[in-house]
Amino acid sequence: MTHGTTRHQGFVLWFTGLSGAGKSTLAERLTKEFQSRGYRVELLDGDEVRTHLSKGLGFSKEDRDTNVRRIGWVARVLARNGVIAITAAISPYRDIRDEIRRETEQAGTPFVEVYASAPIDVVTQRDVKGLYKKALAGELPQFTGVTDPYEPPSHPEVTALTGHQSVEESVAELLQYLSGQGLIE
Amino acid sequence: MTHGTTRHQGFVLWFTGLSGAGKSTLAERLTKEFQSRGYRVELLDGDEVRTHLSKGLGFSKEDRDTNVRRIGWVARVLARNGVIAITAAISPYRDIRDEIRRETEQAGTPFVEVYASAPIDVVTQRDVKGLYKKALAGELPQFTGVTDPYEPPSHPEVTALTGHQSVEESVAELLQYLSGQGLIE
Repeated sequence: MTHGTTRHQGFVLWFTGLSGAGKSTLAERLTKEFQSRGYRVELLDGDEVRTHLSKGLGFSKEDRDTNVRRIGWVARVLARNGVIAITAAISPYRDIRDEIRRETEQAGTPFVEVYASAPIDVVTQRDVKGLYKKALAGELPQFTGVTDPYEPPSHPEVTALTGHQSVEESVAELLQYLSGQGLIE
Repeated sequence: MTHGTTRHQGFVLWFTGLSGAGKSTLAERLTKEFQSRGYRVELLDGDEVRTHLSKGLGFSKEDRDTNVRRIGWVARVLARNGVIAITAAISPYRDIRDEIRRETEQAGTPFVEVYASAPIDVVTQRDVKGLYKKALAGELPQFTGVTDPYEPPSHPEVTALTGHQSVEESVAELLQYLSGQGLIE
Protein backbone atom coordinates (compact mmCIF):
# COMPACT_ATOMS: atom_id res chain seq x y z
CA MET A 1 0.00 0.00 0.00
CA THR A 2 1.41 3.37 -0.95
CA HIS A 3 1.03 6.47 1.16
CA GLY A 4 1.23 8.87 -1.76
CA THR A 5 -1.63 11.12 -2.65
CA THR A 6 -3.25 8.69 -5.02
CA ARG A 7 -6.98 8.23 -5.26
CA HIS A 8 -6.64 5.14 -3.13
CA GLN A 9 -5.14 6.81 -0.11
CA GLY A 10 -7.28 6.76 2.96
CA PHE A 11 -7.69 9.69 5.28
CA VAL A 12 -9.80 10.69 8.26
CA LEU A 13 -12.41 13.40 7.77
CA TRP A 14 -13.42 14.39 11.26
CA PHE A 15 -16.53 16.52 11.76
CA THR A 16 -17.06 18.26 15.06
CA GLY A 17 -19.73 20.68 16.17
CA LEU A 18 -22.88 21.16 18.19
CA SER A 19 -25.88 18.89 17.87
CA GLY A 20 -27.87 20.21 14.93
CA ALA A 21 -24.94 22.06 13.36
CA GLY A 22 -25.13 19.89 10.25
CA LYS A 23 -22.34 17.34 10.82
CA SER A 24 -24.38 14.32 9.76
CA THR A 25 -25.97 16.11 6.82
CA LEU A 26 -22.58 17.11 5.42
CA ALA A 27 -21.03 13.73 6.26
CA GLU A 28 -23.84 11.89 4.45
CA ARG A 29 -23.63 14.13 1.40
CA LEU A 30 -19.88 13.62 1.14
CA THR A 31 -20.22 9.88 1.65
CA LYS A 32 -22.59 9.68 -1.33
CA GLU A 33 -20.33 11.94 -3.37
CA PHE A 34 -17.26 9.78 -2.68
CA GLN A 35 -19.19 6.58 -3.36
CA SER A 36 -20.33 7.92 -6.71
CA ARG A 37 -16.68 8.58 -7.54
CA GLY A 38 -15.73 4.99 -6.73
CA TYR A 39 -13.85 5.64 -3.51
CA ARG A 40 -14.04 3.34 -0.54
CA VAL A 41 -15.74 5.35 2.17
CA GLU A 42 -17.21 4.59 5.58
CA LEU A 43 -19.34 6.94 7.64
CA LEU A 44 -18.95 6.40 11.37
CA ASP A 45 -21.95 8.14 12.80
CA GLY A 46 -22.01 8.95 16.48
CA ASP A 47 -25.17 7.00 17.20
CA GLU A 48 -24.16 3.89 15.25
CA VAL A 49 -20.83 3.75 17.01
CA ARG A 50 -22.47 4.15 20.40
CA THR A 51 -24.63 1.12 19.61
CA HIS A 52 -21.81 -1.12 18.45
CA LEU A 53 -18.81 0.02 20.44
CA SER A 54 -19.93 2.02 23.41
CA LYS A 55 -23.17 0.63 24.75
CA GLY A 56 -23.38 1.46 28.44
CA LEU A 57 -21.28 4.59 28.24
CA GLY A 58 -22.86 7.83 29.37
CA PHE A 59 -22.11 11.48 28.73
CA SER A 60 -19.58 12.33 31.42
CA LYS A 61 -16.32 13.73 30.05
CA GLU A 62 -14.64 10.39 30.72
CA ASP A 63 -17.30 8.39 28.91
CA ARG A 64 -17.46 10.83 26.00
CA ASP A 65 -13.67 10.66 25.71
CA THR A 66 -13.75 6.86 25.66
CA ASN A 67 -16.42 6.87 22.96
CA VAL A 68 -14.57 9.41 20.83
CA ARG A 69 -11.25 7.54 21.24
CA ARG A 70 -12.93 4.36 19.98
CA ILE A 71 -14.29 6.18 16.95
CA GLY A 72 -10.80 7.54 16.39
CA TRP A 73 -9.22 4.11 16.53
CA VAL A 74 -11.70 2.57 14.09
CA ALA A 75 -11.30 5.56 11.75
CA ARG A 76 -7.50 5.17 11.82
CA VAL A 77 -7.67 1.45 11.11
CA LEU A 78 -9.98 2.09 8.15
CA ALA A 79 -7.94 4.97 6.78
CA ARG A 80 -4.65 3.06 6.90
CA ASN A 81 -6.38 0.48 4.72
CA GLY A 82 -7.21 3.00 2.01
CA VAL A 83 -10.69 3.94 3.17
CA ILE A 84 -11.98 7.50 3.56
CA ALA A 85 -13.22 7.37 7.15
CA ILE A 86 -15.77 10.08 7.91
CA THR A 87 -16.82 10.66 11.51
CA ALA A 88 -19.74 12.77 12.64
CA ALA A 89 -19.82 12.67 16.43
CA ILE A 90 -20.14 15.88 18.45
CA SER A 91 -16.66 15.19 19.94
CA PRO A 92 -16.84 18.26 22.18
CA TYR A 93 -13.39 18.15 23.80
CA ARG A 94 -10.40 19.67 22.04
CA ASP A 95 -7.72 17.62 23.82
CA ILE A 96 -9.17 14.29 22.67
CA ARG A 97 -9.61 15.47 19.09
CA ASP A 98 -6.01 16.68 19.12
CA GLU A 99 -4.85 13.37 20.57
CA ILE A 100 -6.58 11.48 17.77
CA ARG A 101 -5.10 13.84 15.19
CA ARG A 102 -1.60 13.22 16.58
CA GLU A 103 -1.97 9.45 16.56
CA THR A 104 -3.42 9.51 13.05
CA GLU A 105 -0.75 11.76 11.60
CA GLN A 106 2.03 9.85 13.36
CA ALA A 107 0.85 6.77 11.46
CA GLY A 108 1.27 8.71 8.22
CA THR A 109 -2.46 9.16 7.64
CA PRO A 110 -3.91 12.60 6.85
CA PHE A 111 -6.41 14.00 9.36
CA VAL A 112 -8.84 16.68 8.25
CA GLU A 113 -10.84 18.38 10.97
CA VAL A 114 -14.04 20.08 9.86
CA TYR A 115 -15.74 22.44 12.24
CA ALA A 116 -19.46 22.59 11.56
CA SER A 117 -19.88 26.03 13.03
CA ALA A 118 -23.41 27.23 13.71
CA PRO A 119 -24.16 29.68 16.52
CA ILE A 120 -25.92 28.19 19.52
CA ASP A 121 -28.97 30.42 18.98
CA VAL A 122 -29.34 29.13 15.41
CA VAL A 123 -29.22 25.44 16.37
CA THR A 124 -31.49 26.12 19.34
CA GLN A 125 -34.01 27.78 17.07
CA ARG A 126 -33.83 25.03 14.43
CA ASP A 127 -33.90 22.27 17.08
CA VAL A 128 -34.51 19.53 14.50
CA LYS A 129 -34.65 16.76 17.10
CA GLY A 130 -36.35 18.79 19.82
CA LEU A 131 -33.38 18.19 22.09
CA TYR A 132 -32.48 21.81 22.83
CA LYS A 133 -35.98 22.48 24.11
CA LYS A 134 -35.63 19.55 26.51
CA ALA A 135 -32.11 20.57 27.51
CA LEU A 136 -33.15 24.17 28.18
CA ALA A 137 -36.05 22.84 30.25
CA GLY A 138 -33.51 20.97 32.35
CA GLU A 139 -34.63 17.54 31.17
CA LEU A 140 -31.29 16.61 29.60
CA PRO A 141 -28.32 16.94 31.89
CA GLN A 142 -24.94 17.09 30.15
CA PHE A 143 -26.28 18.34 26.84
CA THR A 144 -23.46 19.83 24.78
CA GLY A 145 -23.76 23.57 24.32
CA VAL A 146 -26.41 23.98 27.01
CA THR A 147 -25.39 22.16 30.17
CA ASP A 148 -22.12 20.66 28.95
CA PRO A 149 -19.14 22.34 27.29
CA TYR A 150 -18.28 22.48 23.62
CA GLU A 151 -14.72 23.43 22.75
CA PRO A 152 -14.36 24.60 19.13
CA PRO A 153 -11.20 23.59 17.26
CA SER A 154 -8.31 26.07 17.35
CA HIS A 155 -7.06 25.29 13.84
CA PRO A 156 -9.57 23.21 11.88
CA GLU A 157 -8.63 22.48 8.28
CA VAL A 158 -12.09 23.61 7.21
CA THR A 159 -14.75 25.67 8.95
CA ALA A 160 -18.20 25.20 7.48
CA LEU A 161 -20.37 28.15 8.46
CA THR A 162 -23.47 26.02 8.52
CA GLY A 163 -25.49 28.69 10.27
CA HIS A 164 -25.25 30.95 7.24
CA GLN A 165 -24.34 28.96 4.16
CA SER A 166 -26.28 26.25 2.36
CA VAL A 167 -25.38 22.56 2.46
CA GLU A 168 -24.30 22.83 -1.18
CA GLU A 169 -21.93 25.67 -0.37
CA SER A 170 -20.36 23.75 2.52
CA VAL A 171 -19.99 20.59 0.42
CA ALA A 172 -18.35 22.56 -2.40
CA GLU A 173 -15.96 24.19 0.08
CA LEU A 174 -14.99 20.79 1.49
CA LEU A 175 -14.46 19.16 -1.89
CA GLN A 176 -12.32 22.08 -2.95
CA TYR A 177 -10.16 21.78 0.14
CA LEU A 178 -9.70 18.02 -0.28
CA SER A 179 -8.79 18.22 -3.94
CA GLY A 180 -6.46 21.14 -3.22
CA GLN A 181 -4.65 18.84 -0.78
CA GLY A 182 -4.51 16.05 -3.35
CA LEU A 183 -6.64 13.81 -1.16
CA ILE A 184 -9.24 13.39 -3.88
CA GLU A 185 -8.97 13.97 -7.61
CA MET B 1 -17.32 -1.71 -4.97
CA THR B 2 -18.01 -5.11 -6.46
CA HIS B 3 -18.84 -8.15 -4.41
CA GLY B 4 -17.44 -10.60 -6.93
CA THR B 5 -14.54 -12.84 -6.05
CA THR B 6 -11.88 -10.44 -7.23
CA ARG B 7 -8.62 -9.95 -5.43
CA HIS B 8 -10.04 -6.80 -3.94
CA GLN B 9 -12.92 -8.41 -2.15
CA GLY B 10 -12.77 -8.25 1.60
CA PHE B 11 -13.69 -11.13 3.86
CA VAL B 12 -13.53 -12.01 7.52
CA LEU B 13 -11.07 -14.71 8.58
CA TRP B 14 -12.10 -15.60 12.10
CA PHE B 15 -9.77 -17.68 14.25
CA THR B 16 -11.10 -19.32 17.37
CA GLY B 17 -9.48 -21.69 19.82
CA LEU B 18 -7.88 -22.06 23.22
CA SER B 19 -5.16 -19.78 24.49
CA GLY B 20 -1.91 -21.16 23.11
CA ALA B 21 -3.55 -23.08 20.28
CA GLY B 22 -1.72 -21.00 17.68
CA LYS B 23 -4.37 -18.47 16.59
CA SER B 24 -2.05 -15.46 16.71
CA THR B 25 0.86 -17.31 15.14
CA LEU B 26 -1.25 -18.39 12.17
CA ALA B 27 -2.97 -15.01 11.93
CA GLU B 28 0.36 -13.18 11.86
CA ARG B 29 1.81 -15.51 9.25
CA LEU B 30 -1.21 -15.05 7.01
CA THR B 31 -1.18 -11.29 7.52
CA LYS B 32 2.42 -11.15 6.25
CA GLU B 33 1.60 -13.49 3.39
CA PHE B 34 -1.35 -11.33 2.27
CA GLN B 35 0.66 -8.13 2.64
CA SER B 36 3.42 -9.56 0.46
CA ARG B 37 0.78 -10.27 -2.19
CA GLY B 38 -0.42 -6.67 -2.09
CA TYR B 39 -3.74 -7.26 -0.37
CA ARG B 40 -5.16 -4.88 2.17
CA VAL B 41 -5.21 -6.79 5.43
CA GLU B 42 -5.80 -5.93 9.06
CA LEU B 43 -5.12 -8.20 12.01
CA LEU B 44 -7.44 -7.57 14.93
CA ASP B 45 -5.70 -9.24 17.80
CA GLY B 46 -7.63 -9.95 20.96
CA ASP B 47 -5.33 -7.95 23.22
CA GLU B 48 -5.10 -4.90 20.94
CA VAL B 49 -8.86 -4.74 20.63
CA ARG B 50 -9.29 -5.02 24.38
CA THR B 51 -7.03 -2.00 24.78
CA HIS B 52 -8.75 0.18 22.23
CA LEU B 53 -12.36 -0.93 22.33
CA SER B 54 -13.02 -2.82 25.49
CA LYS B 55 -11.00 -1.38 28.33
CA GLY B 56 -12.81 -2.10 31.57
CA LEU B 57 -14.51 -5.25 30.35
CA GLY B 58 -13.79 -8.44 32.26
CA PHE B 59 -14.12 -12.12 31.42
CA SER B 60 -17.71 -12.92 32.35
CA LYS B 61 -19.73 -14.38 29.48
CA GLU B 62 -21.48 -11.04 29.06
CA ASP B 63 -18.25 -9.06 28.89
CA ARG B 64 -16.58 -11.57 26.61
CA ASP B 65 -19.62 -11.46 24.32
CA THR B 66 -19.50 -7.66 24.22
CA ASN B 67 -15.80 -7.73 23.37
CA VAL B 68 -16.23 -10.34 20.65
CA ARG B 69 -19.24 -8.49 19.17
CA ARG B 70 -17.14 -5.34 18.91
CA ILE B 71 -14.37 -7.22 17.14
CA GLY B 72 -17.03 -8.64 14.83
CA TRP B 73 -18.42 -5.20 14.01
CA VAL B 74 -14.99 -3.73 13.23
CA ALA B 75 -14.10 -6.78 11.12
CA ARG B 76 -17.34 -6.42 9.15
CA VAL B 77 -16.79 -2.72 8.52
CA LEU B 78 -13.26 -3.41 7.29
CA ALA B 79 -14.26 -6.36 5.11
CA ARG B 80 -17.08 -4.46 3.41
CA ASN B 81 -14.43 -1.94 2.41
CA GLY B 82 -12.29 -4.51 0.64
CA VAL B 83 -10.00 -5.41 3.52
CA ILE B 84 -9.13 -8.94 4.64
CA ALA B 85 -10.02 -8.70 8.33
CA ILE B 86 -8.29 -11.36 10.42
CA THR B 87 -9.34 -11.84 14.03
CA ALA B 88 -7.50 -13.87 16.63
CA ALA B 89 -9.48 -13.67 19.85
CA ILE B 90 -10.32 -16.82 21.81
CA SER B 91 -14.04 -16.11 21.18
CA PRO B 92 -15.10 -19.12 23.26
CA TYR B 93 -18.89 -19.00 22.77
CA ARG B 94 -20.48 -20.60 19.73
CA ASP B 95 -23.68 -18.53 19.74
CA ILE B 96 -21.82 -15.22 19.45
CA ARG B 97 -19.52 -16.49 16.70
CA ASP B 98 -22.58 -17.74 14.82
CA GLU B 99 -24.33 -14.39 15.33
CA ILE B 100 -21.35 -12.56 13.84
CA ARG B 101 -21.23 -15.03 10.95
CA ARG B 102 -24.92 -14.40 10.23
CA GLU B 103 -24.58 -10.62 10.29
CA THR B 104 -21.47 -10.76 8.11
CA GLU B 105 -22.96 -13.08 5.52
CA GLN B 106 -26.23 -11.13 5.45
CA ALA B 107 -24.20 -8.11 4.40
CA GLY B 108 -22.81 -10.14 1.49
CA THR B 109 -19.37 -10.57 3.02
CA PRO B 110 -17.74 -14.01 3.23
CA PHE B 111 -16.99 -15.32 6.72
CA VAL B 112 -14.37 -18.01 7.16
CA GLU B 113 -14.15 -19.62 10.58
CA VAL B 114 -10.87 -21.31 11.42
CA TYR B 115 -10.73 -23.58 14.40
CA ALA B 116 -7.22 -23.71 15.84
CA SER B 117 -7.67 -27.12 17.41
CA ALA B 118 -5.08 -28.25 19.90
CA PRO B 119 -5.97 -30.61 22.75
CA ILE B 120 -6.06 -29.02 26.19
CA ASP B 121 -3.21 -31.23 27.42
CA VAL B 122 -0.99 -30.04 24.57
CA VAL B 123 -1.59 -26.33 25.21
CA THR B 124 -1.27 -26.90 28.95
CA GLN B 125 2.09 -28.58 28.42
CA ARG B 126 3.36 -25.91 26.03
CA ASP B 127 2.03 -23.11 28.22
CA VAL B 128 3.93 -20.43 26.29
CA LYS B 129 2.68 -17.57 28.47
CA GLY B 130 2.64 -19.52 31.74
CA LEU B 131 -1.09 -18.87 32.05
CA TYR B 132 -2.27 -22.48 32.30
CA LYS B 133 0.01 -23.07 35.28
CA LYS B 134 -1.57 -20.08 37.01
CA ALA B 135 -5.07 -21.10 36.02
CA LEU B 136 -4.57 -24.67 37.25
CA ALA B 137 -3.21 -23.26 40.51
CA GLY B 138 -6.48 -21.36 40.88
CA GLU B 139 -4.89 -17.96 40.37
CA LEU B 140 -6.87 -17.11 37.23
CA PRO B 141 -10.60 -17.40 37.58
CA GLN B 142 -12.52 -17.63 34.31
CA PHE B 143 -9.64 -18.97 32.26
CA THR B 144 -10.92 -20.54 29.06
CA GLY B 145 -10.44 -24.30 28.93
CA VAL B 146 -9.66 -24.58 32.63
CA THR B 147 -12.19 -22.69 34.70
CA ASP B 148 -14.29 -21.26 31.89
CA PRO B 149 -15.94 -23.03 28.93
CA TYR B 150 -14.69 -23.28 25.37
CA GLU B 151 -17.24 -24.28 22.76
CA PRO B 152 -15.61 -25.55 19.55
CA PRO B 153 -17.26 -24.64 16.24
CA SER B 154 -19.76 -27.13 14.83
CA HIS B 155 -18.93 -26.47 11.18
CA PRO B 156 -15.75 -24.43 10.81
CA GLU B 157 -14.59 -23.81 7.25
CA VAL B 158 -11.11 -24.94 8.23
CA THR B 159 -9.81 -26.92 11.19
CA ALA B 160 -6.11 -26.45 11.79
CA LEU B 161 -4.83 -29.36 13.86
CA THR B 162 -2.23 -27.20 15.53
CA GLY B 163 -1.48 -29.80 18.17
CA HIS B 164 -0.08 -32.13 15.54
CA GLN B 165 0.83 -30.25 12.40
CA SER B 166 3.44 -27.56 11.83
CA VAL B 167 2.66 -23.88 11.34
CA GLU B 168 3.71 -24.28 7.68
CA GLU B 169 1.24 -27.11 7.18
CA SER B 170 -1.61 -25.12 8.72
CA VAL B 171 -0.77 -22.02 6.66
CA ALA B 172 -0.67 -24.08 3.47
CA GLU B 173 -4.02 -25.67 4.32
CA LEU B 174 -5.58 -22.24 4.89
CA LEU B 175 -4.20 -20.70 1.70
CA GLN B 176 -5.45 -23.70 -0.25
CA TYR B 177 -8.94 -23.31 1.19
CA LEU B 178 -9.06 -19.57 0.49
CA SER B 179 -7.87 -19.89 -3.10
CA GLY B 180 -10.25 -22.81 -3.65
CA GLN B 181 -13.06 -20.46 -2.64
CA GLY B 182 -11.78 -17.74 -4.96
CA LEU B 183 -11.15 -15.42 -2.02
CA ILE B 184 -7.50 -15.05 -2.95
CA GLU B 185 -5.72 -15.72 -6.21
